[in-house]
Amino acid sequence: MPSYKAPVDDFKFILNDFLKVLDHSDLPGFDALDSELIDQILEGGAKFFEEVWAPLNLPGDEQGCTLENGIVHTPDGFKDAFHQAAEGGWNALSVPEAFGGAGLPGILSSCISEMGNSANQSLAMYGGLTGAAMMSLMYLGTDFQKKVIVPKLVSGEWTGTMNLTEPHCGTDLKLMNTKAVPQEDGTYRISGTKIFISGGDHDMTDNIIHMVIAKIPNSEGKLENNLGTVNFFMVPKFLVNEDGTPGARNGVTVGSIEKKMGIKGNATCVLNYDNAVAFKVPEDKPEAANEQSGEKKSSASGMAGMFLMMNGARMGVGMQGYALAEVACQNATIYANDRLQGRSLSGPKNPDGPADPIIVYPDVRRMLMMARSFAEGARALHMWLSFTGATAVKLETQEEKTAVGEITNLLTPVIKGYLTDMGFTSTNAAMQCFGGHGFIREHGMEQFVRDSRINQIYEGANGVQALDLVGRKLFANGMVGTNAYYGLIDKEIADAKDQNGLKGMSESLATGLSHLRAATSWVAENALQDREQAGAASYDFMTMFGTVSLGFMWLKMMAVAQSQLDAGAGNAEFLKRKIAHGNFWAQKMLPDTASLLEKIKTGGDVLMELEASSF
Amino acid sequence: MPSYKAPVDDFKFILNDFLKVLDHSDLPGFDALDSELIDQILEGGAKFFEEVWAPLNLPGDEQGCTLENGIVHTPDGFKDAFHQAAEGGWNALSVPEAFGGAGLPGILSSCISEMGNSANQSLAMYGGLTGAAMMSLMYLGTDFQKKVIVPKLVSGEWTGTMNLTEPHCGTDLKLMNTKAVPQEDGTYRISGTKIFISGGDHDMTDNIIHMVIAKIPNSEGKLENNLGTVNFFMVPKFLVNEDGTPGARNGVTVGSIEKKMGIKGNATCVLNYDNAVAFKVPEDKPEAANEQSGEKKSSASGMAGMFLMMNGARMGVGMQGYALAEVACQNATIYANDRLQGRSLSGPKNPDGPADPIIVYPDVRRMLMMARSFAEGARALHMWLSFTGATAVKLETQEEKTAVGEITNLLTPVIKGYLTDMGFTSTNAAMQCFGGHGFIREHGMEQFVRDSRINQIYEGANGVQALDLVGRKLFANGMVGTNAYYGLIDKEIADAKDQNGLKGMSESLATGLSHLRAATSWVAENALQDREQAGAASYDFMTMFGTVSLGFMWLKMMAVAQSQLDAGAGNAEFLKRKIAHGNFWAQKMLPDTASLLEKIKTGGDVLMELEASSF
Repeated sequence: MPSYKAPVDDFKFILNDFLKVLDHSDLPGFDALDSELIDQILEGGAKFFEEVWAPLNLPGDEQGCTLENGIVHTPDGFKDAFHQAAEGGWNALSVPEAFGGAGLPGILSSCISEMGNSANQSLAMYGGLTGAAMMSLMYLGTDFQKKVIVPKLVSGEWTGTMNLTEPHCGTDLKLMNTKAVPQEDGTYRISGTKIFISGGDHDMTDNIIHMVIAKIPNSEGKLENNLGTVNFFMVPKFLVNEDGTPGARNGVTVGSIEKKMGIKGNATCVLNYDNAVAFKVPEDKPEAANEQSGEKKSSASGMAGMFLMMNGARMGVGMQGYALAEVACQNATIYANDRLQGRSLSGPKNPDGPADPIIVYPDVRRMLMMARSFAEGARALHMWLSFTGATAVKLETQEEKTAVGEITNLLTPVIKGYLTDMGFTSTNAAMQCFGGHGFIREHGMEQFVRDSRINQIYEGANGVQALDLVGRKLFANGMVGTNAYYGLIDKEIADAKDQNGLKGMSESLATGLSHLRAATSWVAENALQDREQAGAASYDFMTMFGTVSLGFMWLKMMAVAQSQLDAGAGNAEFLKRKIAHGNFWAQKMLPDTASLLEKIKTGGDVLMELEASSF
Repeated sequence: MPSYKAPVDDFKFILNDFLKVLDHSDLPGFDALDSELIDQILEGGAKFFEEVWAPLNLPGDEQGCTLENGIVHTPDGFKDAFHQAAEGGWNALSVPEAFGGAGLPGILSSCISEMGNSANQSLAMYGGLTGAAMMSLMYLGTDFQKKVIVPKLVSGEWTGTMNLTEPHCGTDLKLMNTKAVPQEDGTYRISGTKIFISGGDHDMTDNIIHMVIAKIPNSEGKLENNLGTVNFFMVPKFLVNEDGTPGARNGVTVGSIEKKMGIKGNATCVLNYDNAVAFKVPEDKPEAANEQSGEKKSSASGMAGMFLMMNGARMGVGMQGYALAEVACQNATIYANDRLQGRSLSGPKNPDGPADPIIVYPDVRRMLMMARSFAEGARALHMWLSFTGATAVKLETQEEKTAVGEITNLLTPVIKGYLTDMGFTSTNAAMQCFGGHGFIREHGMEQFVRDSRINQIYEGANGVQALDLVGRKLFANGMVGTNAYYGLIDKEIADAKDQNGLKGMSESLATGLSHLRAATSWVAENALQDREQAGAASYDFMTMFGTVSLGFMWLKMMAVAQSQLDAGAGNAEFLKRKIAHGNFWAQKMLPDTASLLEKIKTGGDVLMELEASSF
């Protein structure tokens, strides 16, 4: 059975030393923070997720979910653990007080969410998607939805889901067949089949709020192959009475639950909608309701709710990538210190024992340091971006504020794509440290790998993220975001120039950034005439962008750590460990940018020349 | 349900055009070959494995193996399919006729083995390990073993296993606790626990021949922490009567079967040995039998049988790496041609349909071409090495013959390590092409990934292979093998210089080889003073070595294909497809050597500086 220990020291380092969140008490939410509260929250969360959620992870995988007589049963203990989290308020730390939350900064929720995902990704997903549904209703819902439904999601009395995929379409939403027919009373009736719905049904709560996209038919009642007709709806499992109690059963039922590679504790459902009562989000404006149904389709905000939910979900999936790398790396580290096998290449390190622990081997250390430097670098990136967004209101010029928004857009596909790729790679390396024991269920390592694998797929497969990065984000709005982001890295390198101990990393990062700029120019020059070239470069580009971004974070963290060491402040062992992992990233990860650039420059012709039938 | 189509055209290309096996009729085994026989064998094997073995793969994974009242049950259909293969002689093509085989060259068995592994790795493993056990007895067994036992393994009446690992030790065999106590009659009695025994027990055959390593105690009856006391034994599940029928039950029982990530159709057993009757292989010489038991321990050939078996198994595992990449890539190619989603970046390719098939996307093609160029390059390398070994007898000088042996030693860890790493990466990329559908059991893609994962672990985890390559093989015997191998690549590049269409590949390969030589020099210079440096470089070195080796194979294949195209011979579509995949390797894989070299040159200090307790 694997163990989990929340990385409280690292969260404190990031919050207090790296981001210095306590310096921002002029911002709402941050004003309530002090060092003690941060400690209390982190330590309380750690205790809860370590002791209550983590022990259910392996048995939840073994038992899985079952469907009997139309009812989905979650693994033993999940329901109780879910409600304990809700009662502890762990899912509502950063929800505004008006909706029943604690109103603390989102950056604190990031720490708690990560703990949940490390401890038990399958269980965390029920709440994670609830959060996404909640957010879309909080921003775009009616008064009733905000006052009555959102608080039920905040309190954990109900959960939420996200319904996009259909059997024949995922990425290409304009192909969808789910139909939303407008009714006289302003509601809609939805019919169709949605698949791969995480937490799509379960036995944990009284009601489930499905957020669904569907097409509004044209005036002849037909569906068009047109993204403009796709809209966003709320479909409760049980209709909600005015007093907030669940009412009549709505027309949404579970067709089946999927047998899948991992996240088996989460019920992935096929949901059949049959004339289910649906509420458009945002609701039609009164004047629009008087128009012909076919004309509602061009509502520009038709998918706004979906994008809100989707971007939040993408950030959340990126976090799942490093959350699993963290817990897998922890277990591999324990095993590597424990497992005796052979002798160190430089002479016995455990001369009184029959053999040395395998952590004496450079290649075992390589795997552990890759996983750890990734997990800590990724955590820093995720939290830095969230914090940068939260503090942008204090920036002086509108230009600066815009740049932060654009950087967020730019980094979202990288966080989803690169962090889940490296999350899988790291989790897999941690499993490799166990040798044959990694392949056996009881150690839990192979489960981390199977669970981690979904993160590269859902909420837009990573190839789609790469294309989003290169095709949409990189050159958006005159490259405001891209240039601003590269400029931040330049500045960090320049600032590090004279600081003790940062030379290796800053040089390595400068080289990486020069490769990234060269790749950016190459794509700019070649993709204009031939869009296939952008597609061909996209994946290598995303990998390079992610590698440089984590280098950027490591340089920032090393600068903080080195300053503290120079000043004799902080925990020297912790700080030296930070610096060692930063140097690992500099020496063993950043050099990848050279080859990635070379590959990008060979272009896409080799990919496109064969006929599809020749593959 | 996934499908499988044996790559018969590629086998024919390799046998007939690339290796030109028909030009070697002066060699035993090869003399029986003609073009028709090759076709018959390949097509017969293809039909059998496609139709009989492949359909059992997914249900076998779902059902798994069970242990009831001490009896291991294999999945439905496995027993019958195993015996059909034996009756068809598919497992005995290259076994000498004296032992009941067909006496054909091993290179033909390679094709058939690959088909078995692609179709159903779990089922193939029962026969694969039988082959390894068979080989050790064929070379080192007594007359009785050769005449009575080997033919039972050849005919498939019985199976064989390989017993190395114990709960607390795998790689470090000198820690083992399994004891083999010599008896008056020249036999031994083995007691101890072996784990992770593939096909360790099952209901398919009447008897199982376990090949076991165990320690002979010293004259005080104690086990020493000394590899020299480890010896190799045959332990039949049922003792074998003189007429070859199974006799009394021996003292070996199944403790449990492992729950594991993949290869669930293969029974991975914990075997408990309790005074089991064992026969040393090779048997003690009469004079040795008169000595004190403690003095037998220094027998130099004590582990010869194990190494024979192990090296064969490592080559076999490397094959499993590309066998799964092949079948996974086939299924991904079908899906990518079938799944409609979005539109090509350069305008609709399926304008009459609602969307284009996803094979129009450069990044989907990147994944497919990586998997395919890997699978075909790996197949070529495996078969080229086997063929080079088989034809070495015809070389003129002893020096040349020695070089071939050394090249085989050098490439064995690369074939085990790199081919299984890339096999996993390729299988995983093929799964990614399916998006969410790849994560669902019914498509079978996630099973290929789970099955493939074991290949990086068993028969020596890949980190151990990397250390074997760099620490033992690379500089062995004055680098005869290494220099000879690099020289072969030089010659291929020189030969390609003036050939039409090979410029890109030969330049790319020349650069890759120069990086490999630079890495070799770096290790030579740095590892002498500090062996940790060799360990730190080892994994990147193995990856670089494998990447260059597949480039070498691709250049050879491209040269053949281009000559045929220039002459208007052969199937032009097939040949152009070869050249395109070779160019993919040149442009998208070989550039990795630049970064790998750079990483190697940063050395191992960053890995070794932290205390183990600081990880």
